[in-house]
Amino acid sequence: MKSCGLIVEYNPFHFGHLYHLQQSKEASGADCMIAVMSGNFLQRGEPAIIDKWHRTEIALSQGVDVVLELPYVFAVQNSDLFAKGSVLTLSEIGVDTICFGSEQGDISPFLKAYEHVNAHETSYKESLHQYLDQGFSFPEASRHAYEAIGLSNHAIDLSQPNNILGYSYTKTILDHDLSITPMTIKRTQSGYHDETITHQIASATSIRKSILEGKEMTKEAEGSLPGSSIEKLMEYKQKATGWHDWERYFPLLQYKLTTLSPEEIRSFHGVEEGLEHRLLHTIKEATNFSEWMTLLKTKRYTWTRLQRTITHILTHTKKQEIEPILQLNQLPYVRLLGMSETGRSYIRQQKKKMGVPILPNVQSGNHEFVTIEERSVDAYLSCLPAEQKKRLRKRELGPPVMPHM
Amino acid sequence: MKSCGLIVEYNPFHFGHLYHLQQSKEASGADCMIAVMSGNFLQRGEPAIIDKWHRTEIALSQGVDVVLELPYVFAVQNSDLFAKGSVLTLSEIGVDTICFGSEQGDISPFLKAYEHVNAHETSYKESLHQYLDQGFSFPEASRHAYEAIGLSNHAIDLSQPNNILGYSYTKTILDHDLSITPMTIKRTQSGYHDETITHQIASATSIRKSILEGKEMTKEAEGSLPGSSIEKLMEYKQKATGWHDWERYFPLLQYKLTTLSPEEIRSFHGVEEGLEHRLLHTIKEATNFSEWMTLLKTKRYTWTRLQRTITHILTHTKKQEIEPILQLNQLPYVRLLGMSETGRSYIRQQKKKMGVPILPNVQSGNHEFVTIEERSVDAYLSCLPAEQKKRLRKRELGPPVMPHM
Repeated sequence: MKSCGLIVEYNPFHFGHLYHLQQSKEASGADCMIAVMSGNFLQRGEPAIIDKWHRTEIALSQGVDVVLELPYVFAVQNSDLFAKGSVLTLSEIGVDTICFGSEQGDISPFLKAYEHVNAHETSYKESLHQYLDQGFSFPEASRHAYEAIGLSNHAIDLSQPNNILGYSYTKTILDHDLSITPMTIKRTQSGYHDETITHQIASATSIRKSILEGKEMTKEAEGSLPGSSIEKLMEYKQKATGWHDWERYFPLLQYKLTTLSPEEIRSFHGVEEGLEHRLLHTIKEATNFSEWMTLLKTKRYTWTRLQRTITHILTHTKKQEIEPILQLNQLPYVRLLGMSETGRSYIRQQKKKMGVPILPNVQSGNHEFVTIEERSVDAYLSCLPAEQKKRLRKRELGPPVMPHM
Repeated sequence: MKSCGLIVEYNPFHFGHLYHLQQSKEASGADCMIAVMSGNFLQRGEPAIIDKWHRTEIALSQGVDVVLELPYVFAVQNSDLFAKGSVLTLSEIGVDTICFGSEQGDISPFLKAYEHVNAHETSYKESLHQYLDQGFSFPEASRHAYEAIGLSNHAIDLSQPNNILGYSYTKTILDHDLSITPMTIKRTQSGYHDETITHQIASATSIRKSILEGKEMTKEAEGSLPGSSIEKLMEYKQKATGWHDWERYFPLLQYKLTTLSPEEIRSFHGVEEGLEHRLLHTIKEATNFSEWMTLLKTKRYTWTRLQRTITHILTHTKKQEIEPILQLNQLPYVRLLGMSETGRSYIRQQKKKMGVPILPNVQSGNHEFVTIEERSVDAYLSCLPAEQKKRLRKRELGPPVMPHM
């Protein structure tokens, strides 16, 4: 069975994701579509609008065959570590290809960029550190460093978030010499020609914004979401008394930070260069999350980086827990969130060849990543009323999603 | 100026407290009445129903001349440490007498008990440890040990909470050889003869229960409270969107415990003998505070001891922060919460003789106790909406309460 890997967040699953799924299947000629998905917290440092289980149900209903969890330790990270965790997960399960969306829809600029950066690695690193020392944020310093080695002239624009991610996926495959073929399809923002989809393609960000503002499903969002996505969004909202956004966690964050010492705050992943004092000082002044972020933002720290740091504070993730993943070249396990009939056949076939176990739930393993995963679930649900929290918490210990089995 | 010290919590101030105040003034012949009062968290391990500032205002309106804060590190402790902090605070400010309420209203049994226990110290301690090893709670083991050395036959019933406290005050004065005369007045539970008070004397516990249950002032409570007590209770309720009780802190506690490791939980003061596992296991099951306490309670741990431990978890108070107070024989500072005109004259007179500074607010000092105090304020206010929290938090940095000055 030929398989194709996708790296996704589905927050929430919309027609653009469906297009990516269908085009990737066609382009790769795969029989089995395998998605590795961030759990309850996402790469940009945000709680997912609905939990991973409901997002898994949607994914399976739309044609994904296997949903694997990207461990928290890799999910809430910069593009390099996010890519490392995602690609290594897909590699463990034995995918033949990984297909991502990009502006060009052509893999060759990514391969050329990889060769070019490798050939100028020393200059790139020197330049990067110079810009960082000047107080630029990482993405800005990195963009300037790419320019300095002349990458912008003949390859690819690595200041675009999607290109950065695509480049990181490609780099991980090549760095680790994996037997996976990187592929890319052209992203589409508006109308396109697939007959089965005639709906609006909107970004997940604009969809979240639209529904989180009024705390209700909007006409605009409805036009961009498949029926099962709308259904599961409404189902989760009812179960959890609302969708998740940062504002709901503000009282917990304020309580936590004001009762910790600066030294303790400094122990969390992402708190560097005296940020602990700024975090403390500003959260005492703020009365809601967005006010806090406005007070907290500086040139050096991107919004995304600050949100990731706050996620690690919320989930109590220490520097020492993250350090081991930098050296890791193989994941300790692969966690299954859901599968279709096709997915089940594929996994049965792959299981024997795999070097690491497939976990059906978090109790099966004793790895430290599992402990962190459980903690992230508790942190994610901590803003809900106690009854709802207890009910949704139980789901974490249950089996993977298996529709119609 | 002659002064008399009182050790109080005023949670809330009721007619029984007024009786104690007036009787102590009469019995001691003091010109200046000085109360050392627990801050926002109390000896039995509970958040005060209203904050220390409003309780200070009531105390001053009822005839107390000086209100000093009992540092958090001593306030939420067993009777020995609570007494140590309270008596040493009153000693610093130079009180001539300390007058507490007891069932007998006679100081001699307390003095005799002290002599008897001193004479049989080794047997008492041996006996105490035996009962503790058998799994008895501290108060029970201690009662049996007192029986074992024959104290019950000729002195005082040290199984009564008020006698235990009175005994601890007496013991602290004598152990430290302080020039303070211990005194006691007879407690009264119902009608008594003072003409100025013809109201119901109810316990603070029953008053709290009565108003916290319905979240409204009740006729029953009103009959037991002076006018200014009712007024300040209502004023605070309006400012803080409600009175404080443990239930309001449950979501924060659940979030905190479920995201900490057992090792981290064990670092909090009061978490001993594997209690961390029981705390974690039970809070995952519970959906409110009282349900949690029911699941948590065992023979070995009294309700009070568990509540104290939970207070230290909420305020993030570590074992290593408490250890130094065991050896302490002098407080590092005395913190002033409020004073009348008389109180001001008294303090002006005493200030020169004092060996430690009087702090008008928490920013004046850099002592570790002050840091803990500030943290306990943040923890206390953490259950309020952000706007209210911010406003009440500011009060902590302000000057002491000084009516009509």
